[in-house]
Amino acid sequence: MSAARLDCDLLVHSAAQLLTLAGGPQRGARLGNLGLIEDGALAIAAGRIVAVGPTRAVRAQVRSRAELDARGQVALPGFVDPHTHVVWAGDRANEFEQRLAGRTYMEIMAAGGGIMSTVRQTRAASVAELAAATRPRLRQMLAHGTTTVEAKTGYGLETEAELRQLDAIELLAVEGPWTLVPTFIGAHAVPAEYAGRAEAYVDLVVDEMLPAAAGRLPRWAARNLPVFCDVFCEDGAFTVAQSRRILERARALGFSLKIHADEFVGLGGTALAVELGAASADHLVQTPAADIAALGRGETVAVGLPGTPFGLAQPDYTPALQILEAGGLLALASDLNPGTTWCESMQMVIALACRYMRLTPAQAIAAATINAARALRLDHAVGSLEVGKAADVLLLGVPDYRHLGYRYGTNLVQTVVKAGQVVTV
Amino acid sequence: MSAARLDCDLLVHSAAQLLTLAGGPQRGARLGNLGLIEDGALAIAAGRIVAVGPTRAVRAQVRSRAELDARGQVALPGFVDPHTHVVWAGDRANEFEQRLAGRTYMEIMAAGGGIMSTVRQTRAASVAELAAATRPRLRQMLAHGTTTVEAKTGYGLETEAELRQLDAIELLAVEGPWTLVPTFIGAHAVPAEYAGRAEAYVDLVVDEMLPAAAGRLPRWAARNLPVFCDVFCEDGAFTVAQSRRILERARALGFSLKIHADEFVGLGGTALAVELGAASADHLVQTPAADIAALGRGETVAVGLPGTPFGLAQPDYTPALQILEAGGLLALASDLNPGTTWCESMQMVIALACRYMRLTPAQAIAAATINAARALRLDHAVGSLEVGKAADVLLLGVPDYRHLGYRYGTNLVQTVVKAGQVVTV
Repeated sequence: MSAARLDCDLLVHSAAQLLTLAGGPQRGARLGNLGLIEDGALAIAAGRIVAVGPTRAVRAQVRSRAELDARGQVALPGFVDPHTHVVWAGDRANEFEQRLAGRTYMEIMAAGGGIMSTVRQTRAASVAELAAATRPRLRQMLAHGTTTVEAKTGYGLETEAELRQLDAIELLAVEGPWTLVPTFIGAHAVPAEYAGRAEAYVDLVVDEMLPAAAGRLPRWAARNLPVFCDVFCEDGAFTVAQSRRILERARALGFSLKIHADEFVGLGGTALAVELGAASADHLVQTPAADIAALGRGETVAVGLPGTPFGLAQPDYTPALQILEAGGLLALASDLNPGTTWCESMQMVIALACRYMRLTPAQAIAAATINAARALRLDHAVGSLEVGKAADVLLLGVPDYRHLGYRYGTNLVQTVVKAGQVVTV
Repeated sequence: MSAARLDCDLLVHSAAQLLTLAGGPQRGARLGNLGLIEDGALAIAAGRIVAVGPTRAVRAQVRSRAELDARGQVALPGFVDPHTHVVWAGDRANEFEQRLAGRTYMEIMAAGGGIMSTVRQTRAASVAELAAATRPRLRQMLAHGTTTVEAKTGYGLETEAELRQLDAIELLAVEGPWTLVPTFIGAHAVPAEYAGRAEAYVDLVVDEMLPAAAGRLPRWAARNLPVFCDVFCEDGAFTVAQSRRILERARALGFSLKIHADEFVGLGGTALAVELGAASADHLVQTPAADIAALGRGETVAVGLPGTPFGLAQPDYTPALQILEAGGLLALASDLNPGTTWCESMQMVIALACRYMRLTPAQAIAAATINAARALRLDHAVGSLEVGKAADVLLLGVPDYRHLGYRYGTNLVQTVVKAGQVVTV
């Protein structure tokens, strides 16, 4: 009783299971190390974790102004969703019905639908309107436990509209309480007005959009957050050579890198990502064996997006077990977007990954927290419950972490703590 | 202004879309008639609907003590979930993980897992304990818009334990605010102690369990609710002959009938259901063509349970479009249970049915409301918004009904009205 005890703001104690996810990103067969503590506790001061361990041990270390009793609950880090298109205007519910009634995506596109429908509505929206449309989705994400969200542009496809999407992301990031990480993806599609002139559109991205977007980098650096540049490398979108041109320019301007690769055709985007040291390569449904092997040797995180094939009722999912066998770093994300998968919940993503990527709940949880943080190069700051990290903590109303995955379609999160504050959602 | 206006308790008005589902159960190609009213309203008195139509017309008819502004929302009838195993004790999260790690269901059964694990825990529970375990699931269902729930026994598999499940259902039914409809399914599995002696277990069901359960029928009749008897007709469970013996006895005792048929093998259970005039035949994944044709001629509702193959990551779903082509009555249900699909949300069931049974959102909504009510023979009382029916109404936070199905994994319900009362969930 003689040692001085640490003053803290909040003590979360007595969790049936506390999952620390300590020890950094989890490669290959190591995926699924939860760092489980029974009857676990953590102490928070100034928004950061200052102690974590068995309740008795943490209690002995700290003196807290407030307590949260987590008896009968599971405590774990807030989910990190490292791939979303959450900023858009309008919706495409009508196209969903048309597809079910038998119309093909190409027919819908020809009738002015598909991504260009969202582009038209997003171009017409002001920054305030974009933020207003996006805010309820971020609230849903937070309510379902996602405390860090990557948010892409890519529904502007012209310089001013792309910058307005970036400004909407910044507006919402400053508002909080979520952590938002911006990604510029001017090369998300070739807009209708550049049909047949993809190379000219790449010129616009490289010569005008990227330099303009780069002007925002210092403000994000001041928040200790990276800004990513992403490209949709796919048949009908951008070739590997065009993707390389864009990503190399972006890297030179100070962006961190991501890529949409191998969603429908294995073009070589994943190998490009590893070669360029991209933080992540995303989708990876049709990735060639050689590129899976490259992931095992490189530092690029493979991000599986099981909501996308599910949303489209397509049979093929990211070959997660092969990526793990190759020694790769695997993360999960929602791909939240109005065309293929409108689902804000990483719990649902975990349930899909268990069924269709054959991950265990423990593997899926690690892929949705510490490894997802790595896909944003934020694994030093979020994604695990360790001393010094942000106090982003979820309490689930379940006695065992394996209820994640097992149960689906509802929200198991009862309490969200973001940067030390209990959030009401 | 001279006509006397009807006094009412609550006016729900200005819904962007109000889906009445009026006109009774929807057969075959008729499925999907929503009875959509733009700027719709309904008036409620003493728990029942007394007026429904365009807001201006309803306002002219009534004078209301309270109002609910549904601007920008979709109003529709509360979901009816006509097939659940919601009453159980314990959970099987560990088995879910074991299956993902490669153990077969047979290995899990041999180690004391599978349904007998739930049976052991349910047998050990008192009525109060069963009700306490079930209540949070019913709350989740209500929060996701399910206002009428069928609830089966079948985890007792001995007379006293089956009756305790029935008593738990009654306790929760009286407590409300949900409407619960009980189903006795003593023939849910052959319990371990009758292994190899299925016929002796059928004797027990027919000679002891059914007569004992029949003693409860008058109390449910007094509530204007049927009591069903169901059988799991399947290879490894009960043959068609055993199912017939049980169902004929049940019918003679005053039970209404249901059957689990064709989940893994098409044995002939669906034809039996049609022949016996059962209210529904459920699962119907491997139903032979002749039995699908019989559904088109009969009064038995085909209940698809897409959560079950999804929960098990199996590829085959109820052939909904073939059933509709044959002129059948199709409904949807959750099959909520601890082994194969723990999901309380009919919104998720609709999303699965759109993707894997190829229903349009409009068809899936009708299958989850008026046709689901028909599967419980309660289509006179619930399942649509028509004058005289129970005021079970949902308000969704979406501008268009097609967001149901399109979006998934979250809860679009913002307000639940059950029997005229706004429910806080």
